Amino acid sequence: MERERFNEALEEAIQIVLDDLKNKGTPEGYYHRIERCIRENTLGGKVNRGLSVLHSGQSLLDRSLTDAEFRELSILGWLTELFQAGYLIHDDIMDGSELRRGKPCWYKVADVRMAAVNDACLLKSCIFVILKQRFHGHPAYIDMLELFQDVGFHTELGQLCDTISLAEPGNMNDFTPERYTFIATHKTAFYSFYLPVALALYYMQRASEKNLAQARKILLDMGEYFQVQDDFLDVFGDPTLTGKVGTDIQDNKCTWIVTRALQCAGAEEKRLLCRSYGQPGASHATAAKKVFEGLCLRDLYHQYEQDKVQSLRRDIDAVDETEGLQKEVFVQMLDKIYKRGK
Amino acid sequence: MERERFNEALEEAIQIVLDDLKNKGTPEGYYHRIERCIRENTLGGKVNRGLSVLHSGQSLLDRSLTDAEFRELSILGWLTELFQAGYLIHDDIMDGSELRRGKPCWYKVADVRMAAVNDACLLKSCIFVILKQRFHGHPAYIDMLELFQDVGFHTELGQLCDTISLAEPGNMNDFTPERYTFIATHKTAFYSFYLPVALALYYMQRASEKNLAQARKILLDMGEYFQVQDDFLDVFGDPTLTGKVGTDIQDNKCTWIVTRALQCAGAEEKRLLCRSYGQPGASHATAAKKVFEGLCLRDLYHQYEQDKVQSLRRDIDAVDETEGLQKEVFVQMLDKIYKRGK
Repeated sequence: MERERFNEALEEAIQIVLDDLKNKGTPEGYYHRIERCIRENTLGGKVNRGLSVLHSGQSLLDRSLTDAEFRELSILGWLTELFQAGYLIHDDIMDGSELRRGKPCWYKVADVRMAAVNDACLLKSCIFVILKQRFHGHPAYIDMLELFQDVGFHTELGQLCDTISLAEPGNMNDFTPERYTFIATHKTAFYSFYLPVALALYYMQRASEKNLAQARKILLDMGEYFQVQDDFLDVFGDPTLTGKVGTDIQDNKCTWIVTRALQCAGAEEKRLLCRSYGQPGASHATAAKKVFEGLCLRDLYHQYEQDKVQSLRRDIDAVDETEGLQKEVFVQMLDKIYKRGK
Repeated sequence: MERERFNEALEEAIQIVLDDLKNKGTPEGYYHRIERCIRENTLGGKVNRGLSVLHSGQSLLDRSLTDAEFRELSILGWLTELFQAGYLIHDDIMDGSELRRGKPCWYKVADVRMAAVNDACLLKSCIFVILKQRFHGHPAYIDMLELFQDVGFHTELGQLCDTISLAEPGNMNDFTPERYTFIATHKTAFYSFYLPVALALYYMQRASEKNLAQARKILLDMGEYFQVQDDFLDVFGDPTLTGKVGTDIQDNKCTWIVTRALQCAGAEEKRLLCRSYGQPGASHATAAKKVFEGLCLRDLYHQYEQDKVQSLRRDIDAVDETEGLQKEVFVQMLDKIYKRGK
């Protein structure tokens, strides 16, 4: 029921875009193509970011949402999904990935290919079309606009550091815990955790400086934990659950797994990792995985998860609610990702 | 001298970005890389769009620019160059181009490759970082912000229609003059002609509704003419002057050349075009060019150019200057592109 009403907001958002495209005189075939691009790239996922906007907005109130609030928070939710859709399209191109959410990546679709580069930009631009059309009169319109810009810049900065290894493959001096935290925070935490809650705070006019700062600190930390999960699942997850085949090892990514492995590896294990990590081909990936298994990284991960969730719960408990922020916002986000397998 | 002072503004813009990156804790190697990406992709061109902001601002006044005005218009000018740089990077990737401004395209650089997809987004995000840092207190800050968003959406829409042919190669029913005008206006005219003048109007606080509408009409028309020149040069231009090798024919592009050729072609010429246009390989491109030569498209182009420039001069002459717009803005833009060979 909630999900159905949430999905209706996507239809409204699409209609805003289509009306705008028609106003601009776009030939029919092209606006159908943009509609298809939106649907194919926003649906089929968990929609966690989108729902977070709605649930955060709900948690901030001690009454039920009005119909209008439900609808508008849901539209803002879909904007975070459009945001993510755009970045995932680019990410898949840069990583040469095959599958996303169990289907071929958008740039792998026969009548799309490299036009996907521009499609991703279009999806991000739709955010601003919808924002302007639907929230121009909202007191926090400019803040929301700047928030999307700002989070976009953070995400791209994270993507840059994630995609470009400054060192050659085989040289792993770069793979430090500090660099890992920088990448995870920027490429994932800002848009997946901070963005939905900040949007809800702006929408509800509870975005005091203190509330934003409190939210940001906890959510960036939670987002790093989420990225650690992602890195774990890339190597040890079940592709039938995650909907994608991991490529982090051959892509020479600075992941939680490899940074931790390097911390506990001996000379021989380091030599083996340097030889296999970031090399093309399945046999190298298997060799790297074997080193990870030997270093008991599964156990290390489960220990990390326990510690991290404990410390997050402590931080959430210390949140000051006097300016209208609610601990509940963070509790439900954490509950949603704790021990996830996809 | 003017050019030197204009270039100094790029240094200021770069410094704003670097300071922001340092504030965000970006590892040193990465902000150096972003600086390199900005320089490599904004320098080496004609900088016509950037200078247009400065010259338009100057033309609106009946006194010299103050140092502060010169500096700020120049920074806004560089923002249009960052905008263009981002779109050219994506354009080259989608078209599989080799050269840009006489050098390898950014995505062809050995240590860049597909990371160029994200670099282009970063360049566009830098616009908003600089705008916020330098113009947050300007009365038209939000208008300028929305202008960049809006023009971006137009550009992407034009790119979509330019990149994706809805028909199969060999079926040219799609290549109508109406579709051509839509593509040229959106992918080129908005950002190359309307954006610089609108920015100058906003900066000088002369952006009345009437002034914007007058400017938009003339500039979109002028921008279409500019794109027609580009299409002509792609086929008949001198690569040592243009700095790029044309790929429009093999890329099956809906260009001015092919839409006009189809208008005057007989049955046999249409058959030849259908067989060669949009096909890979140099021999097909040569065959298509031979058809174009046979239809005297060079002459048709020169005639078009004469007529178009005449009609643009008439429209410029009819501009109403009472709300502070100046005909001179348009005259100098037209003079700059008239009969260009690069």
